[in-house]
Amino acid sequence: MRILGIDPGLHITGWGVINYDGYHLKYVAHGTIVTKPGDTISWRLNEIYKELSNVVEDYRPNEVAIEEVFVNNNPHSSLKLGMARGAAICCVGVLGLDVSEYTPNKIKKSVVGAGHATKDQISTMVQILLNCGSVKLDAADALAVAICHAHNKTKYQEPS
Amino acid sequence: MRILGIDPGLHITGWGVINYDGYHLKYVAHGTIVTKPGDTISWRLNEIYKELSNVVEDYRPNEVAIEEVFVNNNPHSSLKLGMARGAAICCVGVLGLDVSEYTPNKIKKSVVGAGHATKDQISTMVQILLNCGSVKLDAADALAVAICHAHNKTKYQEPS
Repeated sequence: MRILGIDPGLHITGWGVINYDGYHLKYVAHGTIVTKPGDTISWRLNEIYKELSNVVEDYRPNEVAIEEVFVNNNPHSSLKLGMARGAAICCVGVLGLDVSEYTPNKIKKSVVGAGHATKDQISTMVQILLNCGSVKLDAADALAVAICHAHNKTKYQEPS
Repeated sequence: MRILGIDPGLHITGWGVINYDGYHLKYVAHGTIVTKPGDTISWRLNEIYKELSNVVEDYRPNEVAIEEVFVNNNPHSSLKLGMARGAAICCVGVLGLDVSEYTPNKIKKSVVGAGHATKDQISTMVQILLNCGSVKLDAADALAVAICHAHNKTKYQEPS
């Protein structure tokens, strides 16, 4: 099974791809999509959409996982996050993929073993679990979502 | 020029299409896209995306206008609105259309003549300006955005 994890954000959207055979996790790729605050919202959302489409085309995941959103007290931030999330979910949906959602606590427990962990702790554990090199924080979160999804799966599927 | 106005919402997304020759507004079509609260966010966003794609395919607008978002004090509502907005903007962007944004006050002034107007007042004025029959409230808001965009245009373009 090949899993794409996404950590959407209007400024930075992290993504990570792993393979999972029911027992072992294997790192495949990761990256970030960065949009400029000076560009229009329309342009930025389309950048996220297009870049994510390329990731799906390049790595052909079977399943997609995304973090259930953390709503902070700032409605403006929530709105921006919502738009980026809408673009990401639409992108993979249009390409025929379902999206599984996991709470931040569940993701942290799945990777670090505790519901409360810093971004650095997550990044370190992701690198250990996947036996991969240095990973950017936003992409580490995306890989963490993918790992969490793998841990919630039992059956094995060959990557298509 | 053919203009598509969109009033995005996770539950109800209104849309309206008008023609504008630089002097006269002409009603073309309107409708709403309704998604069920019981369905997954992924499903609902994709419904919005697919239905709006159909509208663009059916009516071939040259330009698209959307309301600049009203951020209320509820971050959860802002997030939902953001996701619907992200889906709508991505949809028209992927189809090669730019999106113009207008504040709620500018739209109301453009249609009713005052920055503060009820939804019923907007609906009534939209029906008078477009000389069309009864219009649902959410679609009336979408037609109002399209009218506002028309009022901000001077040059004439044939519908493609």
